[in-house]
Amino acid sequence: MKPDRDEVARFYAELQSSLCDAFAALDGTARFGVDRWERPGGGGGVTRVLVGDGPLEKAAVNVSTVWGDVPPRLSDALASRASTFFATGISMIFHPRNPHAPTMHANLRYFETDRGDAWFGGGIDLTPYYLYEEDVRGFHRALREVCDAHRVADYPAWKAACDRYFFLPHRGEARGVGGIFYDHLTERLVEVDRFQRDLGSRIFELYGPILERRMTTPYDAAQERWHLRRRGRYAEFNLAVDRGTRFGLETGARAESVLASLPPRVRWDYAPRVEPGTPEHALVEVLRRPRDWA
Amino acid sequence: MKPDRDEVARFYAELQSSLCDAFAALDGTARFGVDRWERPGGGGGVTRVLVGDGPLEKAAVNVSTVWGDVPPRLSDALASRASTFFATGISMIFHPRNPHAPTMHANLRYFETDRGDAWFGGGIDLTPYYLYEEDVRGFHRALREVCDAHRVADYPAWKAACDRYFFLPHRGEARGVGGIFYDHLTERLVEVDRFQRDLGSRIFELYGPILERRMTTPYDAAQERWHLRRRGRYAEFNLAVDRGTRFGLETGARAESVLASLPPRVRWDYAPRVEPGTPEHALVEVLRRPRDWA
Repeated sequence: MKPDRDEVARFYAELQSSLCDAFAALDGTARFGVDRWERPGGGGGVTRVLVGDGPLEKAAVNVSTVWGDVPPRLSDALASRASTFFATGISMIFHPRNPHAPTMHANLRYFETDRGDAWFGGGIDLTPYYLYEEDVRGFHRALREVCDAHRVADYPAWKAACDRYFFLPHRGEARGVGGIFYDHLTERLVEVDRFQRDLGSRIFELYGPILERRMTTPYDAAQERWHLRRRGRYAEFNLAVDRGTRFGLETGARAESVLASLPPRVRWDYAPRVEPGTPEHALVEVLRRPRDWA
Repeated sequence: MKPDRDEVARFYAELQSSLCDAFAALDGTARFGVDRWERPGGGGGVTRVLVGDGPLEKAAVNVSTVWGDVPPRLSDALASRASTFFATGISMIFHPRNPHAPTMHANLRYFETDRGDAWFGGGIDLTPYYLYEEDVRGFHRALREVCDAHRVADYPAWKAACDRYFFLPHRGEARGVGGIFYDHLTERLVEVDRFQRDLGSRIFELYGPILERRMTTPYDAAQERWHLRRRGRYAEFNLAVDRGTRFGLETGARAESVLASLPPRVRWDYAPRVEPGTPEHALVEVLRRPRDWA
């Protein structure tokens, strides 16, 4: 049995509104704009980007619901010979200004074709610039709890999948400290839908308190430089590694919406040293050898 | 007849030295470091990166000469069933601090296999942030002159190939105002070698005077912001589009050397407006509709 796709799309749209309200209130200085766009082949989306002078240097919460003929690039990826598709999803990114506060990314999505393909995909993950173990442990434990409440969810497998997916082979490093990642869930879709609604409704409490706790920590110019360099790794992942970004750009999605995830300011310095025994080194160690946090 | 591959590699190494000397002198404040690295499978390289507080915010002139068993990823790209290869090349990037001075990129390379494959590739191109037509015209005219002096060189075809190669499909824009780009030149290799030596020896005079002319132009914060945003496009090209970068990262080349081309500081703002009638708009117009400059 499939979920009602319009209901799924409506849930994503409502989640977008409530998250934008909640994070704008937390930031306190800015609001999320509203950019509606249409896709020539069918459907469209709403891109909501916050830019302000406050704790959130850049944030975007985007939804899209698109349909139409299966584009060639998508056709190659499908096992069936579907001719039309429907896809709805929400994706979000929060880039705090303070190097002590981690970046958070999440997305939830649902896909169908006229040949009976139907699946959910999604995930949520954290990218710190300085490691606060209690933040990471709390984030992962909360994710484990959400998963444990749904028999269709599998925290250990999805945690491992997240570590595998958000990995930069050319750096030998994970993008961050992970979270959960799942894709092509084709079974028990009504229950997966219920799980996603549960996860979605907890996104603010998963990340908001961490952001609030770290966003006023003092930092100096060297820490800011480290922050901007690590954001360079984030941009490397999204542009050079991420299949989702590449797929979006190659299938003609709106570039400004796809790339709204890129960090606002970035540095690339050549081969900077990271001295053992420093907090910077401690982070890199964790990115090289992902740990169990829950 | 093939050129002596060790002589080609020696020319690239000498060119690296002379260019580093010449550009360090022009910059006046900094020098190029020397990082030697070895490739486990055979060969290695010398990465020379300048970082300073002067007119050149970041610059890299890298050579590598590598050989060994053909890696799987390269094997797919070869028509022959070669089992060993030899590749030597020089690549360079200059990112000035001043938004009025363009970025310059160039590379020259030679490739051989044990099955008789042998070719040259290379090119040089300019990426301005503000359009000074006389600079672009002078650059292209000088390239046409170098090409016209060698019957193996074809300025019109290579200028068109450059516009095609340095193009961001997701932005509908060229990376810059082009130059020349050629690849897989398998005929008259001794003459191509002579052409490359001629081109290589002119690189400083092709770019140095432009840099010198623009590097002291006053600029304000809005122009700097524009500069950093446009550098974002440069990073998008190198990370998401460039076949050379992708090939390097996927075949296990030293990441810091491959990514030394990335701009030092970058901004990604969401969907910034470019008002018609401004110098920023004039640049974008040229990037959307490449012109003939020579």
